[in-house]
Amino acid sequence: MKVLVWNEYFHEKNDEKVKQVYPAGIHQAIADFLSKEPDMEVKTATLEDPECGLTPEVLAETDVLLWWGHMAHDKVPDEIAARVRDEVQKGMGFIALHSAHMSKPFRYLMGTSCTLTWRENGDSERVWVVAPSSPIAQGIDRFFTLPHEEAYGEHFDIPEPDRLVFIGHFDGGEVFRSGCCYHRGMGRVFYFQPGHETYPTYYIPEVQTVLKNAVRWAAPICRLSALDCPQVKPILPVHSEE
Amino acid sequence: MKVLVWNEYFHEKNDEKVKQVYPAGIHQAIADFLSKEPDMEVKTATLEDPECGLTPEVLAETDVLLWWGHMAHDKVPDEIAARVRDEVQKGMGFIALHSAHMSKPFRYLMGTSCTLTWRENGDSERVWVVAPSSPIAQGIDRFFTLPHEEAYGEHFDIPEPDRLVFIGHFDGGEVFRSGCCYHRGMGRVFYFQPGHETYPTYYIPEVQTVLKNAVRWAAPICRLSALDCPQVKPILPVHSEE
Amino acid sequence: MKVLVWNEYFHEKNDEKVKQVYPAGIHQAIADFLSKEPDMEVKTATLEDPECGLTPEVLAETDVLLWWGHMAHDKVPDEIAARVRDEVQKGMGFIALHSAHMSKPFRYLMGTSCTLTWRENGDSERVWVVAPSSPIAQGIDRFFTLPHEEAYGEHFDIPEPDRLVFIGHFDGGEVFRSGCCYHRGMGRVFYFQPGHETYPTYYIPEVQTVLKNAVRWAAPICRLSALDCPQVKPILPVHSEE
Amino acid sequence: MKVLVWNEYFHEKNDEKVKQVYPAGIHQAIADFLSKEPDMEVKTATLEDPECGLTPEVLAETDVLLWWGHMAHDKVPDEIAARVRDEVQKGMGFIALHSAHMSKPFRYLMGTSCTLTWRENGDSERVWVVAPSSPIAQGIDRFFTLPHEEAYGEHFDIPEPDRLVFIGHFDGGEVFRSGCCYHRGMGRVFYFQPGHETYPTYYIPEVQTVLKNAVRWAAPICRLSALDCPQVKPILPVHSEE
Repeated sequence: MKVLVWNEYFHEKNDEKVKQVYPAGIHQAIADFLSKEPDMEVKTATLEDPECGLTPEVLAETDVLLWWGHMAHDKVPDEIAARVRDEVQKGMGFIALHSAHMSKPFRYLMGTSCTLTWRENGDSERVWVVAPSSPIAQGIDRFFTLPHEEAYGEHFDIPEPDRLVFIGHFDGGEVFRSGCCYHRGMGRVFYFQPGHETYPTYYIPEVQTVLKNAVRWAAPICRLSALDCPQVKPILPVHSEE
Repeated sequence: MKVLVWNEYFHEKNDEKVKQVYPAGIHQAIADFLSKEPDMEVKTATLEDPECGLTPEVLAETDVLLWWGHMAHDKVPDEIAARVRDEVQKGMGFIALHSAHMSKPFRYLMGTSCTLTWRENGDSERVWVVAPSSPIAQGIDRFFTLPHEEAYGEHFDIPEPDRLVFIGHFDGGEVFRSGCCYHRGMGRVFYFQPGHETYPTYYIPEVQTVLKNAVRWAAPICRLSALDCPQVKPILPVHSEE
Repeated sequence: MKVLVWNEYFHEKNDEKVKQVYPAGIHQAIADFLSKEPDMEVKTATLEDPECGLTPEVLAETDVLLWWGHMAHDKVPDEIAARVRDEVQKGMGFIALHSAHMSKPFRYLMGTSCTLTWRENGDSERVWVVAPSSPIAQGIDRFFTLPHEEAYGEHFDIPEPDRLVFIGHFDGGEVFRSGCCYHRGMGRVFYFQPGHETYPTYYIPEVQTVLKNAVRWAAPICRLSALDCPQVKPILPVHSEE
Repeated sequence: MKVLVWNEYFHEKNDEKVKQVYPAGIHQAIADFLSKEPDMEVKTATLEDPECGLTPEVLAETDVLLWWGHMAHDKVPDEIAARVRDEVQKGMGFIALHSAHMSKPFRYLMGTSCTLTWRENGDSERVWVVAPSSPIAQGIDRFFTLPHEEAYGEHFDIPEPDRLVFIGHFDGGEVFRSGCCYHRGMGRVFYFQPGHETYPTYYIPEVQTVLKNAVRWAAPICRLSALDCPQVKPILPVHSEE
């Protein structure tokens, strides 16, 4: 399984607090634990790479793309975001992390505004399993706890998930649909809310378990080479064919 | 209820066959029967109008927008298509007709490629009701028949509909999810497959019944003025508030 | 709109604490505020009535049935519960309240165990709107607060709702899918979690707003006289019919 | 993977025409091709076995249960049907075949009447793939053809499928949602329409491919030992726990 972890990689270079948490970048922290899985071959890419590191060749060889972005959503050119969207529609898995709810590829894939309410206040979060039979929830108890997270609140403007796996609650009061599954074309999409840059969320074992599960869930079953509208011929009646 | 019927209005001016079927344009044929409804105030707009007739002011005053397009999808500027999408997310109803499956606003709202298979061969079509309790199916029997339609076939690359109302069958063999309901943000979206420009589909009573029903179903319940991510404060514990 | 409020009416007669909150029974408290609506004609029935007050004649004349039950689920005969289920499948609306998650009609309609976790500890609850465009959420702000409720927690074993309208959070930690919409046959089903017998939940304005909205949402659009599998004849080809 | 194929086994013993098609019973024909799969261990059971061959011990050891029934739905005792339903809710996979749409376990799991229209007229059927990325559709082209099948038509009274995989079309005119996926509790349910007793449907390669795929899709990820509503304690605030 070929996994690509994409990160805008901005906060970690420009904010001392974030640098201390993720000295090699969030993408590297995620790649580190995924690459310990025997069935995963993990690469990374960032905004600074040519074409954001998302050339057609790279995408065609990627089974599952994880995406972290926040400040620089607009720096990703529309045509590259559309390229990601198209590759998902052809079968590539896509996992949108935390503030990637407002990333271009995720919004393109949802068709909604993906807006929400938020607060950076050191809230703790409890993430509850609401679909215990989902492959993404395996290995997770009834809930797990994040000592500190950015609070995200409803209304989260997303389509009704094909399957809602997690609901988060923040101690400042909000609830949030924190783990959401979608099918888009031949591809699978998972949104996972935890992962604010100033907290060591991606080192938490349950978060790692969820992401490993999600990568396996999102891996393509089949892959299209093109998205088009072919003209077709009438089909002969069954008994004419016999 | 303020209804706007949008049409690219190309075939009717350039193709003698189409002109004979819809001499004043498909938009006018649709507006004609909708405007007989006492609760509907109907206007039209076409690609030729300034800003495609879809200025922010016009959209803000539109409850439900019907959209017919085919050859000129690309002539609708991206920013106007995005404006329509945003207005749906704020609450405006949107009804995509026939070849509008590939229109920019519909694709932006679906997040899928919206591709399908097709054939222009004079097939007849039977449209079957699969959700008889849907408000959109009221007044329709188990099925209705279109003597001739362009054949559309699966795989139709759409998200799983929030509700599938109609399935069509073409006598050349194909089946198609012909009536599909979605929620997107505060707005409602309905896709309805019949309506090829060379056939008098929009004069068929059942087609008119479906569209009248769909307009009423898609009418906004509430309307947002903006799509944003507001910062919120923690909520005091219940018993502190008392 | 003909509304029937059903209550097992046990706690209110046998528990002094409950009697003080609902001296005439929970059913009467609900009927009181619903019957102030000009479009609603409200009756009540309880377990003590002959056939639980749910004769075929009564059900046939009921547009929407609200159901409160807790200790006496098993006292409702299977055949009466099945009669309710069948009437929903024919078109009657059904609103399951609080502990009615384990009532026979609701479980028959869901096809799942409808189990959950619970605690009676005086928790307060916040009920958050996650589908602000739902007709059932109109008139409700981002959330509303119940000073005390029985805590219900996930995993709530229900089918993925056709639309999830509310998520509740209890200050002892749990989250819960508190407002869930379903289509079953020609009928609509809404589950609403608040309403423990020892707290004055049904006097809270937002709870009343939700229930009024839910009754209107669940009202039948059409009604079947029977549920059967009719034998049908082949349909002549379109052009043979012409 | 432990697979149990259940059949009422009535037609094959009492109808000469059916006996010729399935001399050892439909269950045996299905078990024959499934048991060639290296990952499947296949058993059979019929209505004549004690407790219908569906003792608690048998069910607890079954990963996926396939069910064929038609004339003798009522001969399956309610408590055994409920036992099957409960085992699905605990995690067992369940595949309802053809006329099992009216079987007790399937109806218990759906919560709808599962009624449809039908005709035995030698119609041919085309089964179209509408979810090509579903694991159940792998190995199937755009459609496959059954030379003869009993015609089933809409309205098929089922809940909106979690995923609709196949739509069938019969040459007498009807369309039908022929392959439908559901989650119920911890278990997965698949309904597959082809399989009338008088036609050699279960010998058709595509039908066998679908059923092999469906068994693998329905296999449990986790399994509960009980379905209950446990009382839970409040969770300490995060920072108290630290």
